[in-house]
Amino acid sequence: MTDIAGWEKVRAHDTDLRRRAAAVIPGGMFGHMSVGRLPDAYPQFYERSEGTHVWDVDGNEYVDLMCSFGPMILGYKHPRVEAAAAAQSAKGDTQPGPAPCMVELAELLVERVAHADWAIFAKNGTDATTISLMVARAETGRNKVLASAGAYHGAAPWATLRMDGVAPEERANMHYYEYNNVSSVERAIDEAGADNVAAIITSPFRHDAGFDQEDVDPAFARRLRQLCDDLDAALVMDEVRTGFRLNHGGSWEPMGIEPDLSAWSKGIANGYPLAAVLGRRRYAHAATRIFVTGSFWFQAVPMAAAVATIEALRDEDAVAVMERVGGRLRDELGRLADEMGVPINQTGPVQMPNLSFPGDVEFAKARAFSAAMLERGVIVHPRHNWFLSAAHDDGDVDRFLEAAQAGLEAAREVDGAD
Amino acid sequence: MTDIAGWEKVRAHDTDLRRRAAAVIPGGMFGHMSVGRLPDAYPQFYERSEGTHVWDVDGNEYVDLMCSFGPMILGYKHPRVEAAAAAQSAKGDTQPGPAPCMVELAELLVERVAHADWAIFAKNGTDATTISLMVARAETGRNKVLASAGAYHGAAPWATLRMDGVAPEERANMHYYEYNNVSSVERAIDEAGADNVAAIITSPFRHDAGFDQEDVDPAFARRLRQLCDDLDAALVMDEVRTGFRLNHGGSWEPMGIEPDLSAWSKGIANGYPLAAVLGRRRYAHAATRIFVTGSFWFQAVPMAAAVATIEALRDEDAVAVMERVGGRLRDELGRLADEMGVPINQTGPVQMPNLSFPGDVEFAKARAFSAAMLERGVIVHPRHNWFLSAAHDDGDVDRFLEAAQAGLEAAREVDGAD
Repeated sequence: MTDIAGWEKVRAHDTDLRRRAAAVIPGGMFGHMSVGRLPDAYPQFYERSEGTHVWDVDGNEYVDLMCSFGPMILGYKHPRVEAAAAAQSAKGDTQPGPAPCMVELAELLVERVAHADWAIFAKNGTDATTISLMVARAETGRNKVLASAGAYHGAAPWATLRMDGVAPEERANMHYYEYNNVSSVERAIDEAGADNVAAIITSPFRHDAGFDQEDVDPAFARRLRQLCDDLDAALVMDEVRTGFRLNHGGSWEPMGIEPDLSAWSKGIANGYPLAAVLGRRRYAHAATRIFVTGSFWFQAVPMAAAVATIEALRDEDAVAVMERVGGRLRDELGRLADEMGVPINQTGPVQMPNLSFPGDVEFAKARAFSAAMLERGVIVHPRHNWFLSAAHDDGDVDRFLEAAQAGLEAAREVDGAD
Repeated sequence: MTDIAGWEKVRAHDTDLRRRAAAVIPGGMFGHMSVGRLPDAYPQFYERSEGTHVWDVDGNEYVDLMCSFGPMILGYKHPRVEAAAAAQSAKGDTQPGPAPCMVELAELLVERVAHADWAIFAKNGTDATTISLMVARAETGRNKVLASAGAYHGAAPWATLRMDGVAPEERANMHYYEYNNVSSVERAIDEAGADNVAAIITSPFRHDAGFDQEDVDPAFARRLRQLCDDLDAALVMDEVRTGFRLNHGGSWEPMGIEPDLSAWSKGIANGYPLAAVLGRRRYAHAATRIFVTGSFWFQAVPMAAAVATIEALRDEDAVAVMERVGGRLRDELGRLADEMGVPINQTGPVQMPNLSFPGDVEFAKARAFSAAMLERGVIVHPRHNWFLSAAHDDGDVDRFLEAAQAGLEAAREVDGAD
């Protein structure tokens, strides 16, 4: 696939690195940051980042609307976060035990997140969702878990996107419901057996990659909470993607609904590697019974960065900032598309925007849009939600909108070619 | 348990942090760095680290013979590693894609480790062992895995130390053999069914916590390789604990035996969070089929640190340095114990020493030894192997031996009390 003729000319270093990578990394790259399914124009390797801007290895500069798929929430190299990380780094990072900031961080999370009475820390979002299920199983003495079909809760065998390398037994306890569909949850409970359900895992809204996003129906959310209470099972909230972007506490708190356990990662330390499981008092004893750990789980620098990040998020009124900037982006993109006569769907919270084109099942329009944006120095993704940070400003939105004119034009041309 | 009367006096900050932690972290602390099973004298929280020395939050200084349970392999704040990390950090860390150092690191690992044709990176040692099994399953189309009973291969449900929170189905494909016992492997193959075996996972030597360590019998190693060849299954080497401490390549290379896949973490980036799976060409395609990823897996700083670490390890002749210093520690501790008439067992490679006392099944002597060492400013562990780094020197060994006189005395007193 070559979306932009001659792109090699401005991609000499990237092309060279890809060639070298292909010899020593399977497929040249793996995971969610592989450009394998992106238009060819996308760089695979990055040189530096600052604020909302990133530079690829060939010196091309971009406004980044992916925020490294979520971790960047305050802007790259946020002064307050970097100062906290540097101060801790000057003392110590991986040591024979945690630093005092581990306690500060746990206290801060317990203060900010309504349902949280305690915290456990890990590295990956997958660690956090997996530990949540282990705690639920240890507390309830049951094994079945209900998850929304198509939802992404991590890359461990019980959850990953593909079945390659996964033994069927590793999914034997998983049952699936449809997000926002109460009767599908009830069916999944029947299938699992009401007495066997340890947990229902869900996300604050539906953000399955490759699909339009869907806000949660409050009645569905309330019913999930009620069903868990009735079953005496744990409601587990996967906040990995959403955490602190939608609310300064848990994402369902504005609706007055609290989970029993929640999994956090990505944005909580503005790019430093950290994950957390938060839970209600009732689950604290079970959390002491499971054995989970990792060589780097007590690293001090990411915890110091997390304390600074969470404080800065509130001090900068980050959720409101992201809502305002994201709201403007959505409104003006909508207006532009209307003016140009290009039908689009914009879904999900404005700070985690998702753009799609009606009928674009093969993502041809989305790819054309993204490639044109990229050419004009704006990084978005054709089949995954984008992320705003508190550092994105009106200048970034202006640049986005300028590029979007070409992006929508490119999408329309695909239409013409149909 | 109070091993040292009045220790609270010099533990005011640690005691205060433990009290606060108990309110917001289940059990006050979790995982392998919890002091829950250590003598009371041990600090839970650390303030800073430098070279081979660490300081607890009350300002007490120690020679650290645990190396953060392995990650520290060149000394805390090793100048070359820190310079590489700082240089990368000034550019970028978590970005929308990897930095060029990812390719450099993969090339370096492929160059250094004989069986490695490719590398995949992750965060936890558990990620690396889990991915190795996924690759083996994807390639062979089989699901059964043989592991040594009692070996620690990670904290995921398939491997963790306790069954709390683990559904039995998550272990349904695991079969167990006894390390260094060929006929037990053959029995496990029969049990699993020869046609069903995807992988045999093992470690370079037996280092189960709480037991004397055991060198691998070369005949056993050769037979494992042969059995995997006969079964057309993957031999997976867990190098997480041993990696680059025993050899500058794979740990069995001096014996001429190569695995198909290997899992690395801990020391490969001198404390920065990183894990790697290395594999043979045959398994590269399977590695492209599985979906594994993590929000921080493409973080650039740990990869830059890893390149610097692996280069420095060879330039400093680190394995030879650790062997010399570890050899002196073992010899002189043995001589001291002989002189004092205290029977001890020292097992495993000298750079990963394990001390036990014959008949000390409840670890009372080991605890008394460790508590006395701690009081004298030396951190060891009563039931887990210790780790040397290339930064440990004769001064550290002198201090260890001085403390060990009191440690052995304390162990002998437990004997008297039997």
